[in-house]
Amino acid sequence: MKLIYTGKTKNVYALEDGNYLLKFKDDVTGENGVFDPGANTVGLTIEGAGRAGLRLTKLFFEILKEKGIPTHYVDANIEEATMTVKPATLFGNGLEVICRHRAVGSFMRRYGMYAKEGQELDAFVEVTLKDDGREDPPINEDALDMLGILNLDEYKILKELTKKISYVVKEELAKKDIELYDIKFEFGRVGEDKHIALIDEISGGNMRAYKNGEYIEPLKLEKLMLE
Amino acid sequence: MKLIYTGKTKNVYALEDGNYLLKFKDDVTGENGVFDPGANTVGLTIEGAGRAGLRLTKLFFEILKEKGIPTHYVDANIEEATMTVKPATLFGNGLEVICRHRAVGSFMRRYGMYAKEGQELDAFVEVTLKDDGREDPPINEDALDMLGILNLDEYKILKELTKKISYVVKEELAKKDIELYDIKFEFGRVGEDKHIALIDEISGGNMRAYKNGEYIEPLKLEKLMLE
Repeated sequence: MKLIYTGKTKNVYALEDGNYLLKFKDDVTGENGVFDPGANTVGLTIEGAGRAGLRLTKLFFEILKEKGIPTHYVDANIEEATMTVKPATLFGNGLEVICRHRAVGSFMRRYGMYAKEGQELDAFVEVTLKDDGREDPPINEDALDMLGILNLDEYKILKELTKKISYVVKEELAKKDIELYDIKFEFGRVGEDKHIALIDEISGGNMRAYKNGEYIEPLKLEKLMLE
Repeated sequence: MKLIYTGKTKNVYALEDGNYLLKFKDDVTGENGVFDPGANTVGLTIEGAGRAGLRLTKLFFEILKEKGIPTHYVDANIEEATMTVKPATLFGNGLEVICRHRAVGSFMRRYGMYAKEGQELDAFVEVTLKDDGREDPPINEDALDMLGILNLDEYKILKELTKKISYVVKEELAKKDIELYDIKFEFGRVGEDKHIALIDEISGGNMRAYKNGEYIEPLKLEKLMLE
């Protein structure tokens, strides 16, 4: 087992069978010791954060598997805080695909002239480039196509998968009276046919969730969802 | 004739027949006394700037008229630095529609990870909101639709008109061995049928143009095009 990538919150190891092992760390992103899932730097270490994120990820990926929605997931070992995944290639150097059910965060910072804080959005999908140095800029489908990152047909698939997965998460949260406001995903090409599949994780840090109108921070959300 | 709006570079008067009169000023946008067409503040006053901008605008709008491309243009009076236009309603509080033939400026600042400075782009169209306070954020077609600014069918028309008009400008510039790199337009709804039409102006400040690989500043461009 060979370490091939050291990430902010996960390490990646190559397995002999061609799959990869993701080791979830207790490091979380943030700034000045405050947990912020949107931050690009590791802010602090919280004991058990890795395992909690993995448990929630496992829950969602197994539901997606049942529903026949393609992901890179093979299996998970909670004790070891590891997840085995199929190899995937990224779109360009990686995209973030965001699905919004209510207007908060960067949506309001950009479109606040036309939206009210917290207003309902109809599973609105947008894509940003993973590029820390350029503050993860939003990009439209024509630019993705033109720059060879993703063609227009692939964009349609990506958008539909994003909505579908976001509704799966939304429904699971609703069972605990929690409302999903927005969520971000990563996708890649998986398998010999290079089909588009969800990769990375679905943990508290990927989404904004509210209960009784109050924001639930990621670790609290994981606790509520897993108890 | 009643002054109804004082803009950064133009004043707008209501005419008795229902049309509007745009009075081109010699004020140009910029910062610290340097002309910058992308700036949101008036930087300096240059004698003759208004008339030169109007002359170029007249040239292009009359070509567009001949080609049957819808605009708000009625006629122009160079001496008075005025242009008569049909009434138009904006999309939301106004959009900027950008067409790019080469990668420079904000395109590079956002997508520099995937593009080389000056690389050819295939008449790539993108939309930004006119919102000085939020630095004119880019917005995709789904968000325009969802926020009630422009529906998906209107977006298609807007995109096609943008490409068409941009090629008209590109060809005119090419006659003087000048290459159009990018250009920004404003559109509105015009006439009883509320059809989508080009509004505002097409002057040096709307575009980036190069000759023999060197950037030509807006007033120089107007001079070269009108001599």
